[in-house]
Amino acid sequence: MDADSRARRWESRTGLPLAVASLVYLASYAVHVLAPGLPAPVRLALRALQLLVWLLFAIDYGVRWRLSGTGLRFVRRHWLDTVVVLLPLMRPVRMVKTYETVERRHGRPRLPLHARVIVYAGLSALLLGFAGALAVYRQEHGAPHATIRTFGDSVWWTCSTLATVGYGDVAPVTPWGRTIAVGLMACGLALLGAVTGSFSSLLLQRFSREGDEDREGPPGP
Amino acid sequence: MDADSRARRWESRTGLPLAVASLVYLASYAVHVLAPGLPAPVRLALRALQLLVWLLFAIDYGVRWRLSGTGLRFVRRHWLDTVVVLLPLMRPVRMVKTYETVERRHGRPRLPLHARVIVYAGLSALLLGFAGALAVYRQEHGAPHATIRTFGDSVWWTCSTLATVGYGDVAPVTPWGRTIAVGLMACGLALLGAVTGSFSSLLLQRFSREGDEDREGPPGP
Amino acid sequence: MDADSRARRWESRTGLPLAVASLVYLASYAVHVLAPGLPAPVRLALRALQLLVWLLFAIDYGVRWRLSGTGLRFVRRHWLDTVVVLLPLMRPVRMVKTYETVERRHGRPRLPLHARVIVYAGLSALLLGFAGALAVYRQEHGAPHATIRTFGDSVWWTCSTLATVGYGDVAPVTPWGRTIAVGLMACGLALLGAVTGSFSSLLLQRFSREGDEDREGPPGP
Amino acid sequence: MDADSRARRWESRTGLPLAVASLVYLASYAVHVLAPGLPAPVRLALRALQLLVWLLFAIDYGVRWRLSGTGLRFVRRHWLDTVVVLLPLMRPVRMVKTYETVERRHGRPRLPLHARVIVYAGLSALLLGFAGALAVYRQEHGAPHATIRTFGDSVWWTCSTLATVGYGDVAPVTPWGRTIAVGLMACGLALLGAVTGSFSSLLLQRFSREGDEDREGPPGP
Repeated sequence: MDADSRARRWESRTGLPLAVASLVYLASYAVHVLAPGLPAPVRLALRALQLLVWLLFAIDYGVRWRLSGTGLRFVRRHWLDTVVVLLPLMRPVRMVKTYETVERRHGRPRLPLHARVIVYAGLSALLLGFAGALAVYRQEHGAPHATIRTFGDSVWWTCSTLATVGYGDVAPVTPWGRTIAVGLMACGLALLGAVTGSFSSLLLQRFSREGDEDREGPPGP
Repeated sequence: MDADSRARRWESRTGLPLAVASLVYLASYAVHVLAPGLPAPVRLALRALQLLVWLLFAIDYGVRWRLSGTGLRFVRRHWLDTVVVLLPLMRPVRMVKTYETVERRHGRPRLPLHARVIVYAGLSALLLGFAGALAVYRQEHGAPHATIRTFGDSVWWTCSTLATVGYGDVAPVTPWGRTIAVGLMACGLALLGAVTGSFSSLLLQRFSREGDEDREGPPGP
Repeated sequence: MDADSRARRWESRTGLPLAVASLVYLASYAVHVLAPGLPAPVRLALRALQLLVWLLFAIDYGVRWRLSGTGLRFVRRHWLDTVVVLLPLMRPVRMVKTYETVERRHGRPRLPLHARVIVYAGLSALLLGFAGALAVYRQEHGAPHATIRTFGDSVWWTCSTLATVGYGDVAPVTPWGRTIAVGLMACGLALLGAVTGSFSSLLLQRFSREGDEDREGPPGP
Repeated sequence: MDADSRARRWESRTGLPLAVASLVYLASYAVHVLAPGLPAPVRLALRALQLLVWLLFAIDYGVRWRLSGTGLRFVRRHWLDTVVVLLPLMRPVRMVKTYETVERRHGRPRLPLHARVIVYAGLSALLLGFAGALAVYRQEHGAPHATIRTFGDSVWWTCSTLATVGYGDVAPVTPWGRTIAVGLMACGLALLGAVTGSFSSLLLQRFSREGDEDREGPPGP
């Protein structure tokens, strides 16, 4: 119990700063990728900043592992955090969780579940899509026979992937570009599942309410 | 309560005229886009008509905001209306709501929920698809290296996008065309979610009914 | 009530012959499309056969309309039948209904709802897909710049459309081919909805059963 | 009952060895396809190994059929096993079932239903995708005008198919390649259905729990 409460205190204290740090990481990565003409010292500084932020993430992961006191089980139970330590670009997605924690603490009138699912899914898709578009652009734009040549192409391709539309007018051709693409496809599947599942449960709930009304409708004299 | 009832009265009185106005807007936009050879005065008249209708939408939005008496919360709670004021081409979608209000007032035998969801989703897809096809055609048909050159191409591309099929034999190449396309993809996701969710809740409802029958089936003496 | 029972008797008597007739129609259409080198009299005979079967469908529709005694409401309530009279290629889909009626009459152990939905959706997709592939092939294979040139291409394209995958390596280019394609996309959406909805309700049902077990699980003394 | 328990004993004893055998089959097939330059005797040995393993599958199927004592009904009820005997590459999918049986026997804390569905669907997609990529690569890489030329292309194409994205930058062109592709599309549809259905039921369950909390929430004094 004590370990649990200490872990929770740690998370509640580090949540907001780490969310900011993850945005800093994403922004510095974006500058790094989109502005290749920066002078060498600036690029080095960006690299150092990214490394520093990643160290913060690693330390946070280590501390929470330690506080959990559950050994290797921690890695499996918090697999999303484990992935995020290895791929810090995905870290901003944790912000969604931080945001929910903050909002709950403030006791704000929470949105109904379906609206929250749509908002969280949309927000995650936005953050992952931006990170994915950057990473794919970085891999692809210099490759021979590449069709993704500008960052605009990359964003366009990312949107068509996340919506599982997939025009194929532009598509990654390098092995790493395609590996990132497969990750984005998985996000697209999950996004589709979230939207569909949310609609489906909304309808079912409404339906059962209407059914109740029908049954209780004409209450008689 | 008073504000609420006044808002409802406003909506019930302006609903039908504004629905007609939104169709007029769509039609005049269609003529504007599809008949570029019209004489200059006619084109100017069309423009004026569009501006006029858009003003009506803006006034309606302003009045409803005022009547609601909820300040900035109105913008967030009625975000769809806010979007529609900025993108009047999407206004016809509100017709679906007007139609339901009208039908409910007349006390007509409403369709079951699933049928209504399918009908509304289909209708929205039709209206948004038509508006989207027009807007994409306008952006694309003159662009260099464009693959969407006729309005037929644009409609075909819109259908393949809304169904999340996405052949990619024709696809937008301009930044604005692609921006509109991303909006249509989001509609496609929502459409898919509505169809799937509706099926899923229909099945579940049927299933629970069959389960009840099985349990109550052979009631015995 | 009497009209209802007479309508049911009509349906139960004509169901099987009309299902056979719809398969005859599909087969003769297939021969007509796939064997263009047949001698003229044979082609004429096929045409006559198709017309004859279509007349049967029209008569069946007329009689059922008459028996229903509901005037124009019949057209709206039986909109699928109305569509089928206009597009007799879609008629085999009604076979699914006939099959269910026959099976229910024989009191056979029916499959569970989810299995039936999957089987019916699969069967409908198969029949509609075959008819659609034939119709698209007929429109496309002679068109200039067509990418669908063989019946194999058409079947391949149909499959990728029904699964909402949409590679776009081959795609229709003629207006009529694309119109049929939009119909197939709608079928694809419905198929996806049926598969997803069926999975979703299966899981929910299982889940509620497991929840019950958990709650009743350790009953204790 | 006796037949049933003997069948269960057979399955519990042969489950693990056959799962290993199915992986051996997949691995030997992979070597066979991906290393065409192996000396003739080695290739012959691989062929023999595949035949041997396939014989094991056939014997297992035969014994289980015999033990079931249900005649032809067995073929229909165990249609997945029947398919697997004909297409041994799909056999590894049965591993998922074996895994669940093993885990249940050991009384391990099972994952919640939704997590299990996602894990099983992901695992099946992985195994089927690998087998499908191998089979498609084998059919395609030597064909004229083929776009799938390396195994990497084939894996990339398989991923885009299973996610129902379908870019179409590479796509099978041979009849057999396309036949396998249609099977993979069906898997993609099922995978989508599993992910969506799992999300949807998760949301519904959460929702009903929140609804309960709301109702029981402020219990008052």
